[in-house]
Amino acid sequence: MTEPLVATPRTTVRRRAERGSFDRELAHAILDEAYVAHLGFVVDSAPRVLPMTYGRIGDVLYLHGAVGNAMLRAADGADVCVTVTLLDGLVLARAAMHHSMNYRCVVLYGRAERVDGKREKRSAFDAVVEHARAGRSAEARPANASELRQTLVLRLPIAEGSVKVRAGGPVDDAEDLGLAVWAGVIPLALVPGEPVPGGLPSAGGA
Amino acid sequence: MTEPLVATPRTTVRRRAERGSFDRELAHAILDEAYVAHLGFVVDSAPRVLPMTYGRIGDVLYLHGAVGNAMLRAADGADVCVTVTLLDGLVLARAAMHHSMNYRCVVLYGRAERVDGKREKRSAFDAVVEHARAGRSAEARPANASELRQTLVLRLPIAEGSVKVRAGGPVDDAEDLGLAVWAGVIPLALVPGEPVPGGLPSAGGA
Repeated sequence: MTEPLVATPRTTVRRRAERGSFDRELAHAILDEAYVAHLGFVVDSAPRVLPMTYGRIGDVLYLHGAVGNAMLRAADGADVCVTVTLLDGLVLARAAMHHSMNYRCVVLYGRAERVDGKREKRSAFDAVVEHARAGRSAEARPANASELRQTLVLRLPIAEGSVKVRAGGPVDDAEDLGLAVWAGVIPLALVPGEPVPGGLPSAGGA
Repeated sequence: MTEPLVATPRTTVRRRAERGSFDRELAHAILDEAYVAHLGFVVDSAPRVLPMTYGRIGDVLYLHGAVGNAMLRAADGADVCVTVTLLDGLVLARAAMHHSMNYRCVVLYGRAERVDGKREKRSAFDAVVEHARAGRSAEARPANASELRQTLVLRLPIAEGSVKVRAGGPVDDAEDLGLAVWAGVIPLALVPGEPVPGGLPSAGGA
């Protein structure tokens, strides 16, 4: 059995607490299904939120970007919050007030640490590629030493955090149930289209 | 002609600067197409990032949630960063290093201010519902005075911010172009499914 995520005051879901959990397996499933994380960190007392790709190996989340990325460097060694959200549907209620969204969301807190060890860095690199497309890290030309040096990899333990999920139909007030307004859910899913082959020679990076 | 977004040191895209812009119309288009914003703010010197629904009226972004939402209350009057990201595709290169994502992203900075005026609050409320589904604010039962009181609406000017876009195929190094590895883009789009009618009576909220 896997251990739950670590509960702290900031990971305790207070609003609609029944939607919150510390279910680690659910957290992993959400992280593995989504493609984009929103990385939050603080610069000069103000928040920054950047979209990032990532990979997961066991209980560790890896974020990576260019060494030249000043924003990513700012997150190195810093307290961060990483939020990953899957949008599952629009919830249309009879009352404007009860409109909502169905979603699955993981919020993680912790200190992002730079990965220096070559072996872990390469594994993290593979995990990020593998996360975009299973099997891809074995097909593509692996990163060479120079490319690894150009890459900044940050490690965040999947430890302090929580999961929040809303599912199901709208929840209207009893007195509104008779209104002649369509109510229900419009499911939403991120759907892959027809692959578009191609690709140009580089002028220096992805 | 619309004015560009406001450039400041923190909104100046340095990494892959050619992907960045201050194009306000593009920012509006991204905000209108996406459904979820990631709201970043600072609590006890540490970052928090929460997914939120929102609406837009002209050059103002409105976030709303329950008055009882302690997290949203923490953002009231605070410096925030609101990031909205649309994921358009997985970019698979011949080299692991050049894997990427196609995306369109808006990052806004500013002070989130609570909306107290009833008229603006109601307009904001409508904009959030309308954003989920055009025409919906005219169909659904409007929020009554009590529901408006239970709702906290925050206003963020669409002013200081920037847009970043990656589009197109993978960009490999010239020496990798001969490798027998499929390269190209897997387009991704958020697609609505078959509407699911239904909805239960409320036990007190959306």
